[in-house]
Amino acid sequence: MNPINQFVQIVLVETSHPGNIGSVARAMKNMGLSNLALINPKKFPDPEATALAGNAGDVLDGARIFNSIDEAVKNSKVIFATSARERTIEWPVATARDAAQEINQLAAEGLEVSILFGREDRGLTNEELQLSNKHLIIPADPDYPVLNIAMSTQVVCYELYQASQKEPIGPWQDFPEYTSEELTHLIEHFNETVYNLKLVDPNNPKQILTRMERMFRRLYPDQMEGNFLRGFFKEINNQIK
Amino acid sequence: MNPINQFVQIVLVETSHPGNIGSVARAMKNMGLSNLALINPKKFPDPEATALAGNAGDVLDGARIFNSIDEAVKNSKVIFATSARERTIEWPVATARDAAQEINQLAAEGLEVSILFGREDRGLTNEELQLSNKHLIIPADPDYPVLNIAMSTQVVCYELYQASQKEPIGPWQDFPEYTSEELTHLIEHFNETVYNLKLVDPNNPKQILTRMERMFRRLYPDQMEGNFLRGFFKEINNQIK
Repeated sequence: MNPINQFVQIVLVETSHPGNIGSVARAMKNMGLSNLALINPKKFPDPEATALAGNAGDVLDGARIFNSIDEAVKNSKVIFATSARERTIEWPVATARDAAQEINQLAAEGLEVSILFGREDRGLTNEELQLSNKHLIIPADPDYPVLNIAMSTQVVCYELYQASQKEPIGPWQDFPEYTSEELTHLIEHFNETVYNLKLVDPNNPKQILTRMERMFRRLYPDQMEGNFLRGFFKEINNQIK
Repeated sequence: MNPINQFVQIVLVETSHPGNIGSVARAMKNMGLSNLALINPKKFPDPEATALAGNAGDVLDGARIFNSIDEAVKNSKVIFATSARERTIEWPVATARDAAQEINQLAAEGLEVSILFGREDRGLTNEELQLSNKHLIIPADPDYPVLNIAMSTQVVCYELYQASQKEPIGPWQDFPEYTSEELTHLIEHFNETVYNLKLVDPNNPKQILTRMERMFRRLYPDQMEGNFLRGFFKEINNQIK
């Protein structure tokens, strides 16, 4: 099986129109993908989704439904969030094409990747965007850069399929990467340590800890690195008490 | 004006569903295109087309309607026909990506190009395909290679826009990256902190600190991140003494 099919998950967050879910299923199957996760879809299953899925009914039938993004991505090592808007704090960003190369490489190494697509009317919240390791943007005309959600998914799946037709280079890391959940705990432990050292006022952390979170999420630490950092933070907290 | 907007025409042949015409208009405007020609559309104008066009109502309003392809393409120098099927007679063929490069070049030279998209259920006839100079295919999973017409248009317009943009996306980092020397000092400071915490025996550090060095070098911290980590290490060393 194509590694992108095995390890890439498309995550639709609170989709309003069932037709879009069907169109996404077809777009995925056209490009050799099948793992679809739905976070609180407004109407699903629905005949309109089935109609627009065409011959991709199997992708719809296999879709998993979750109440939260956290639950859907807990086994993912890397999370991409699609975004069209500019943010106050810039996050690591990749074009659909560059992201597809990277995701293809991660999948070839056996690492699970989730790609988040936001709501039809207002995309992903800032909180959801900050959960991701990287933002993915589809370069488009600045006069009207917001693609329909099914169209965005089509472009991303198309780029993934094109990237998967090339040979990736082998893995270099010695240990499996931290899961998204482990990374979140690492970042919480770091923040706690910073507060204990009284480097930052917990009541007014400003942007600094968001920036440091971004740094850790960009790092993709592996198990050995992540665990050593956890031990490092633990020992600091022991010795300053 | 972007030459692809000025010289590229999207031609939809006998489209059945007005919603698809609307989706195509949006896909075009998202990617900086506006010349739309409709050959005998079944229902147009139509409220569903208008709804799905989003903010691309101007593209719909400007669409020109013809009774034959010949009439629509009479000023075009080059005609591409999208096709998913293998033909009895082989025709010159290009992938969407390669075709986009070529079309961008033609447009830059001021030559009008038409791109034909066929019917929802049976694409373009052999006669229509033979009218074209070249066939354009979107590489897709052989198990289900037939994209919805609006999706095909999105992928082709996306590739055209990418080809027309030589400018890469801007940098996302807020601060300049650490220099190699600054990074080396950061790593030395980390190692010293690890020794002071007695986490690792300085006489027998084993591979762990080499691995952590690799991690920091992979991170490419920027000035803000690096300086915060330096302050973090300094404060740890102050408070454990």
